[in-house]
Amino acid sequence: ASNDSIVRATLFPGDGIGPEIADSVKQVFKAVGVPIEWEEHHVGTSVDPRTSSFVTYDSMESVRKNGIGLKGPMTTPIGKGHKSLNLTLRKELGLYANVRPCLSIPGYKTRYDNVNLVTIRENTEGEYSGLEHQVVKGVVESLKIITRQASLRVADYAFHYAKTNGRQRVSAIHKANIMKKTDGLFLQCCREVAEKYPDIVYEEVIIDNCCMMLVKNPSLFDVLVMPNLYGDIISDLCAGLIGGLGLTPSCNIGDNGLALAEAVHGTAPDIAGKNKANPTALLLSSVMMLRHLGMGEKADRIHKAIMKTIEEGKFLTGDLGGKASTSDYTKAVCENL
Amino acid sequence: ASNDSIVRATLFPGDGIGPEIADSVKQVFKAVGVPIEWEEHHVGTSVDPRTSSFVTYDSMESVRKNGIGLKGPMTTPIGKGHKSLNLTLRKELGLYANVRPCLSIPGYKTRYDNVNLVTIRENTEGEYSGLEHQVVKGVVESLKIITRQASLRVADYAFHYAKTNGRQRVSAIHKANIMKKTDGLFLQCCREVAEKYPDIVYEEVIIDNCCMMLVKNPSLFDVLVMPNLYGDIISDLCAGLIGGLGLTPSCNIGDNGLALAEAVHGTAPDIAGKNKANPTALLLSSVMMLRHLGMGEKADRIHKAIMKTIEEGKFLTGDLGGKASTSDYTKAVCENL
Ligand SMILES: CC(C)[C@H](C(=O)O)[C@@H](O)C(=O)O
Ligand SMILES: CC(C)[C@H](C(=O)O)[C@@H](O)C(=O)O
Repeated sequence: ASNDSIVRATLFPGDGIGPEIADSVKQVFKAVGVPIEWEEHHVGTSVDPRTSSFVTYDSMESVRKNGIGLKGPMTTPIGKGHKSLNLTLRKELGLYANVRPCLSIPGYKTRYDNVNLVTIRENTEGEYSGLEHQVVKGVVESLKIITRQASLRVADYAFHYAKTNGRQRVSAIHKANIMKKTDGLFLQCCREVAEKYPDIVYEEVIIDNCCMMLVKNPSLFDVLVMPNLYGDIISDLCAGLIGGLGLTPSCNIGDNGLALAEAVHGTAPDIAGKNKANPTALLLSSVMMLRHLGMGEKADRIHKAIMKTIEEGKFLTGDLGGKASTSDYTKAVCENL
Repeated sequence: ASNDSIVRATLFPGDGIGPEIADSVKQVFKAVGVPIEWEEHHVGTSVDPRTSSFVTYDSMESVRKNGIGLKGPMTTPIGKGHKSLNLTLRKELGLYANVRPCLSIPGYKTRYDNVNLVTIRENTEGEYSGLEHQVVKGVVESLKIITRQASLRVADYAFHYAKTNGRQRVSAIHKANIMKKTDGLFLQCCREVAEKYPDIVYEEVIIDNCCMMLVKNPSLFDVLVMPNLYGDIISDLCAGLIGGLGLTPSCNIGDNGLALAEAVHGTAPDIAGKNKANPTALLLSSVMMLRHLGMGEKADRIHKAIMKTIEEGKFLTGDLGGKASTSDYTKAVCENL
């Protein structure tokens, strides 16, 4: 997509605070003049017979066709047998890698300065296989599945990401001293890919040790790649280092360049509809989306405006200790562009 | 055991720096007048035909008979098919719970003040089942096993621990939104036990969220109980909050009051035999051992002397930024008793 031709992108505003923060993205994109036309889809209200799920057929087709999308938080309808909407999307769209940059936000103080790392999570298998059963009464088992194909794919993505983003090191996170076969296969795939990237330092770190090191000195890490559950755990830990999920963007990657950027925080039903939500995570996710589309200059402008707004501290939402509304904050970002 | 009759305890000095730090414990115990007679066992040098493992039959008998022991770090001999010595011990002795208090050390500054929590890890099953196989080429699986028996046992221990140690809250850590059957069973067992402890607040926290909260605000937690792998991960994360494994004690609990206190750090072969190792984790583990034996007063004295020595900062080992030898540090602890 060139910078001037109009790009169609799928938008899932999501539930709870989703529509408000999606609105914030629309306003900022308008202010910057991002040539995007949104195809808006709402999922989760009723089961679509064509997918047998709350995720509608039309919405999947929209993402597949556009190859690009942005997603707010979604609540999975409660009740028997409803699979998580988030997981259904990942599976249906083959979103095999979840990429989460964790960068300190200069204006928002945490215990950690200058955090600058990226977690890349295998997003389709591992402990999320859904294969579980009772062996005998009182004895249950879950299967963790690791495949060569999915491991190579996410390792490839991680090294490619490191190379194209000027990063020096990829750490594969594992527990292969215990899960010798599954995590062992994952490591073997990472090693194979590492050989194709002689300029990137490759190392392997056991997950327990990794968590301890992250807490003591996150600057030891650069790009981290890992199986599904470890990615779930470590990406949240890393988000905590810089302030939490409300400040952390993510982007899911599928085949043929498909990308679905996503705010990974919850729907915050308690403040939904009250113009109180912090749109930062979704805004930063939309920045990742723009980068993916090759609109780096517009992405940079938005990123800087968000950082400036937080640094100025005049229009912060409640979660950041301020009193501003979602619209106040959004207006401030637009003015700082 | 009354405070005056002599107690026999098993000692595994372990490898690498193990013998030096075990020596430090012996000296401090002598200075305090702890009525303990050590039965020293060395494992890991050759396979004992009676156990088909590097862990000797005699050493297992010693722990079983004494019901109490202290263990330094051990290196598992490299080679095909040798199971981790640490895991063999846990399994052979039925050490079903690993208890790790994480308390800030006033004299040792980290990013976190006043950390005061305890992780209680199920130590025998879960992801450590050892059951793995290749399904077809390029597809491997590992089995996570959760049983009602082991889950009830560790939950019971956690609530009992909370009650007898004046703690207010037990958080069960899980990923039951994904592993509905295995982690679901674990939670169900925790809930059943929680009902027997109406004075202890019970809550359930998803592991990814738990890690984020621990990093943002560890004072939200008190006692945490969880399946094996989550315990492995979270106990290291928590150790990181207060400075690392070199400062964190642990104790493994088995049936009939059996307890094996253990320093969980490595053998540090690079500084082994050089009188440079920091004995703090093993000393603090020996304090847990004394508490377990009902020698609370002696335990308190040693604990305070260690804290004072670190706070004074004159005789710190290299890992804490000092220049003192293991013997200097040990002497200082003895003088501060
Ligand atoms: C909501 C939940 C199913 C999901 C996961 O476990 O992957 C979430 O924690 C995430 O990280 O996106
Ligand atoms: C050494 C290793 C097998 C062990 C484990 O994974 O349990 C260690 O990390 C621990 O926490 O004691």
